[in-house]
Amino acid sequence: MFSFKELSAAFAQRFSKPHFPKQPESLYAANDYFLGLGGKRIRPVMCLMGNELFDEIHEDAWQVATAVELFHNFTLIHDDIMDAAPLRRGFETVHYKYGSSTALLAGDVMLVVAYEYLNKISSSYIKPIINLFSRTAKEVCEGQQLDMDFEKLTTVSLEDYIKMIELKTSVLLAASLQMGAIIGGAGEGNCNHLYEFGKNLGIAFQVQDDYLDAFGDPEKFGKTAGGDIKQNKKTFLLIHALQTATGSQQKELTDLLNNDAEDKVQRVLEIFRDCNVDAWAKQLKQQYFDKALFHLEEIAVLSSRKKPLLEIAEFLIQRDY
Amino acid sequence: MFSFKELSAAFAQRFSKPHFPKQPESLYAANDYFLGLGGKRIRPVMCLMGNELFDEIHEDAWQVATAVELFHNFTLIHDDIMDAAPLRRGFETVHYKYGSSTALLAGDVMLVVAYEYLNKISSSYIKPIINLFSRTAKEVCEGQQLDMDFEKLTTVSLEDYIKMIELKTSVLLAASLQMGAIIGGAGEGNCNHLYEFGKNLGIAFQVQDDYLDAFGDPEKFGKTAGGDIKQNKKTFLLIHALQTATGSQQKELTDLLNNDAEDKVQRVLEIFRDCNVDAWAKQLKQQYFDKALFHLEEIAVLSSRKKPLLEIAEFLIQRDY
Repeated sequence: MFSFKELSAAFAQRFSKPHFPKQPESLYAANDYFLGLGGKRIRPVMCLMGNELFDEIHEDAWQVATAVELFHNFTLIHDDIMDAAPLRRGFETVHYKYGSSTALLAGDVMLVVAYEYLNKISSSYIKPIINLFSRTAKEVCEGQQLDMDFEKLTTVSLEDYIKMIELKTSVLLAASLQMGAIIGGAGEGNCNHLYEFGKNLGIAFQVQDDYLDAFGDPEKFGKTAGGDIKQNKKTFLLIHALQTATGSQQKELTDLLNNDAEDKVQRVLEIFRDCNVDAWAKQLKQQYFDKALFHLEEIAVLSSRKKPLLEIAEFLIQRDY
Repeated sequence: MFSFKELSAAFAQRFSKPHFPKQPESLYAANDYFLGLGGKRIRPVMCLMGNELFDEIHEDAWQVATAVELFHNFTLIHDDIMDAAPLRRGFETVHYKYGSSTALLAGDVMLVVAYEYLNKISSSYIKPIINLFSRTAKEVCEGQQLDMDFEKLTTVSLEDYIKMIELKTSVLLAASLQMGAIIGGAGEGNCNHLYEFGKNLGIAFQVQDDYLDAFGDPEKFGKTAGGDIKQNKKTFLLIHALQTATGSQQKELTDLLNNDAEDKVQRVLEIFRDCNVDAWAKQLKQQYFDKALFHLEEIAVLSSRKKPLLEIAEFLIQRDY
């Protein structure tokens, strides 16, 4: 069994080879540039770990892992266009560097190449894999659309927000694990539990992400603290605060959201603390983490095989950066 | 054997069923809207005809035809964003009606659904089909990038322009035919000839399109005459005129391109005529059409089976609208 760290290093090495033709350079340089910016490569490693939970890692799992990482990068390139984001991982976004039209095409072609990798795997399970991959791809697009829809609303229910996060973030984690499991020969029951493990872990991960953006140590987290607050982003924290704040707090919060006061971040954080949003978020995270663990427990393999997954799950939701 | 008209009507009926989930409506309404605008459905019918050239039309050919038409519409939605085009088929483009971000996602999700249709076909040829489809999808993106690159250049060689047209337009026609042929059980040699038939027909088609934009009867063609000229679009005609014009004609042509004179279309057309661009274009079209016919001849099936393809080929390049 390999640890996340080992698989991550092995994947990074394999993934560093060229994935695109050389010509036309005006198109493919954009893809090479973006992939060169790196990333944590969590999803492809989840695919490899999903495989190894049941059997030795098969060559096909590397192909699917590559497809998953290309798909993830395709979504980032297109999301950055939609968000008009100038920076990604501290570097210029593709549309900033190469223009929106090339960024659009670079994303399109990356999605196509993802399917090319899927098409390399054994015919014996190519259909369920492409099926799950495509369903997930649609869900991720749906999640992004809901995220944009929510930006235009003044209030969003916790239930709707969780549904959006599930689609935008969790299902890809869950599907990556399950595609690995399919290659590893897992049965339907085990596949479903692994999927639910990934889905709930993904939500816990997002709660942690929202938490760190508000309460994390900026030096460790690597982002400006309160970035979400500055942008009025709907987060687990804001949604809960708006639901639980008293009348006067709610008025102050709404005023802060509608005006860009200099001390906005500080004052919103005060309201968050007054509403015990931080403790609530920790509890919510734990709740989803427990659900994830329950499903991991239910998977019918030796518990020693689950160790690497358990470790990475704990790391992902306990991280302070 | 069915005629193009019969297959086109049958495909239109099948294609009119829903291809997308209902929710989120903010995303999928955009797809439904765009598909509802119609189109000539040439590519999916080519797929069906490619199948019928060798054998009775198999259910799988309808799935691939649907995938091809969805792919084509995905490229149109994204191209319209890149071109900032307000209208498509006389109606608002998706990004005009629903915003650029939704149009981007609507296109993305349409490409994914195209692959879902491909994933329904028999395992016995799913790999060569997805392989050809994906290679073609990449080429179409490359063609669009080259088209954008050429817009920024003052001159483009005929050779480079033909290469771009091949990628942007011809290969999808060619691949649609070949995918049908694969389903029909055609061997490699026949597949290759059918592909070349489609590729050369596609170029002849584009020459005709460029010709009609300049010299066609606007009432029949359904577009404003000289639209390409007004936009300084690189076309077969302009590229040839720039290559063959005398010094003074070339100067006048360049001046006309750099200024939006009121009589620009009329004066450019005069230069086109003085350079015999119209006769040259007809000859070039015939040259590619003859190449296409040569490859159709070479396909080893009874010539009576080729009749519907021959008819649609003649129709496509002789049309005056």
